[in-house]
Amino acid sequence: MSSRSVVAAMTAYTLELREAEIKLNQNESPFDFPRELKEQVLARMVVRPWNLYPDFESITLRTAIAKAYGLTAENILVGNGSNELLAATIGAFVGPGTPVVFPRPTFALYEKLVTIAGGLPIPIEFEPDSGLLPLDEMLAAIRKYDDAVAIVCSPNNPTGGVMPDGGLEALLGSGAMVLCDQAYADFCAAEGGGATHTNLVTFRTFSKAWGLAALRVGWLSSTVENCREIRKVKLPYSLNVISEAIAALALENRAIRESNVARILAERERVITAMRSIPRITVFPTQANFVTFRTQKPLFDALCARGILIRDVSSYSRLDGCLRVSIGTGVQNDAFLAALKEIV
Amino acid sequence: MSSRSVVAAMTAYTLELREAEIKLNQNESPFDFPRELKEQVLARMVVRPWNLYPDFESITLRTAIAKAYGLTAENILVGNGSNELLAATIGAFVGPGTPVVFPRPTFALYEKLVTIAGGLPIPIEFEPDSGLLPLDEMLAAIRKYDDAVAIVCSPNNPTGGVMPDGGLEALLGSGAMVLCDQAYADFCAAEGGGATHTNLVTFRTFSKAWGLAALRVGWLSSTVENCREIRKVKLPYSLNVISEAIAALALENRAIRESNVARILAERERVITAMRSIPRITVFPTQANFVTFRTQKPLFDALCARGILIRDVSSYSRLDGCLRVSIGTGVQNDAFLAALKEIV
Repeated sequence: MSSRSVVAAMTAYTLELREAEIKLNQNESPFDFPRELKEQVLARMVVRPWNLYPDFESITLRTAIAKAYGLTAENILVGNGSNELLAATIGAFVGPGTPVVFPRPTFALYEKLVTIAGGLPIPIEFEPDSGLLPLDEMLAAIRKYDDAVAIVCSPNNPTGGVMPDGGLEALLGSGAMVLCDQAYADFCAAEGGGATHTNLVTFRTFSKAWGLAALRVGWLSSTVENCREIRKVKLPYSLNVISEAIAALALENRAIRESNVARILAERERVITAMRSIPRITVFPTQANFVTFRTQKPLFDALCARGILIRDVSSYSRLDGCLRVSIGTGVQNDAFLAALKEIV
Repeated sequence: MSSRSVVAAMTAYTLELREAEIKLNQNESPFDFPRELKEQVLARMVVRPWNLYPDFESITLRTAIAKAYGLTAENILVGNGSNELLAATIGAFVGPGTPVVFPRPTFALYEKLVTIAGGLPIPIEFEPDSGLLPLDEMLAAIRKYDDAVAIVCSPNNPTGGVMPDGGLEALLGSGAMVLCDQAYADFCAAEGGGATHTNLVTFRTFSKAWGLAALRVGWLSSTVENCREIRKVKLPYSLNVISEAIAALALENRAIRESNVARILAERERVITAMRSIPRITVFPTQANFVTFRTQKPLFDALCARGILIRDVSSYSRLDGCLRVSIGTGVQNDAFLAALKEIV
């Protein structure tokens, strides 16, 4: 049997699987969840029946998020990673022919999901050097339609840049439905607020700053009406009981996240400064937990040979010769910087 | 912002939330996972880093499933409950206008997913009394198109009936792409085999017979080619590391499942026999872990008042006045039967 033509034409999302001593390729936090909290939550999970479905409303986690972020639970949906919620939201608002405007390069999943939904992808190409996303060009593209959807990841993966000041408000003013992926917002000075707008859906994840990538937990916030529509598309029971309990416990211990973010931001500045002193490397401005840079000679394999796995992003549009390195621990970053200097 | 018209017209999947001492409304297993195995797997999870993403290939679980079911890992995808895999498969094979033939009444999610994908739902109405799904009518509907997809849940939720002997082969012979949901196949004499056909995708879950509904783990099997296409649509990393480890451990302890299934089958026969002796109740034949029955007076609230929560399925097509009760423990079933006799 052949799959749908739009699917057959797609390439699979792939990850180059390599063993490496130092793994800086997936923008993961370098800090594990504290062992005593792990033991505490898993002890509770031993006595929770595993034969019974999760709470249909995920009340525990939605309430914990609401409390932590100054929102109400009615404005929140939780899911199996923010990817699931992005997919459901695109399923709710993007149908055959819906124009969807987004910067390029950006997280490849958006365009895949729009394509699967039968929407019309309208990528706005931009150069990553400035560290800013192409707001004016996005607005111009949105104005050509009366039913545009906009997707923006700020800070943007894989470039690290952000929306210009006032950019989100300008997008909202355009009347487009705006999906704002804030996966990396914890690492950004302007973290983004909790206010809900009729044409805004924001997405957050526990995979990056919270250091819970293994557990797959994300959430979105929007108006009650938008949440109701997205929930029609989202699968029920998509968040398992253990991940839900872990994320709720994490929110009760926000100092962990704040300490981890502070360490990553300090390391990021140190890594950027060191990389800028290396000749023939162009470092793009970043507000995320990674640094993307252009090199004049291939470095990926040479770094791998030294036990350091980073991400080759050179196949992305406008990222010829570019690599992305996640900010790790001080020791990991030192090893990366030493290897980089040696190779260059 | 308004959602897509097909989504706006949909009703949300809802569950009537009621507290009850005896919960027989979600076809859950009444048997929890053994405590010593819970402790064993969670002890391993304490030392697994939570800040790192799951294995991109879910090799551990795919290999364990392959071994347990006589398949190869290349023919298997795992996901966040079989629902997620159904959604991805429909996304891969159902586009705007694709005709999708399925029995009605059946699991409501299929029609929702087909509608979201823009497909043309072709429900084949059938009476649940015979315990058989409407094979001939499905084949006749499939023959009207050259690109039909068929979805069949056997045993069927919420009626309990199955495909007639040779029914799956007949569907495969029609040339339609066949999605076969075997969520309840563990409770059925003809459990379904592991062979892969070019136009067959089968779905299994750990939520029912394995008693792991809280963990959200499902899997599908099909050809390598179909798996490759479905994987383009499926979200990456959709299975968290803890659920994956638990499912893999369950497969190493198949005796637990076999013992639980044997107990449920024995109880099912006892419950059916007892229900058939109650006047003015019509019990439909079932091969699943639940019994659906028609009553001449409303019983749902009266059972609730006695602390017994079952499922009101009377809003389904052809199920006027019907209720569905999951097979529980002997004690739970006794309480249900006693209350039922008392009310009727």
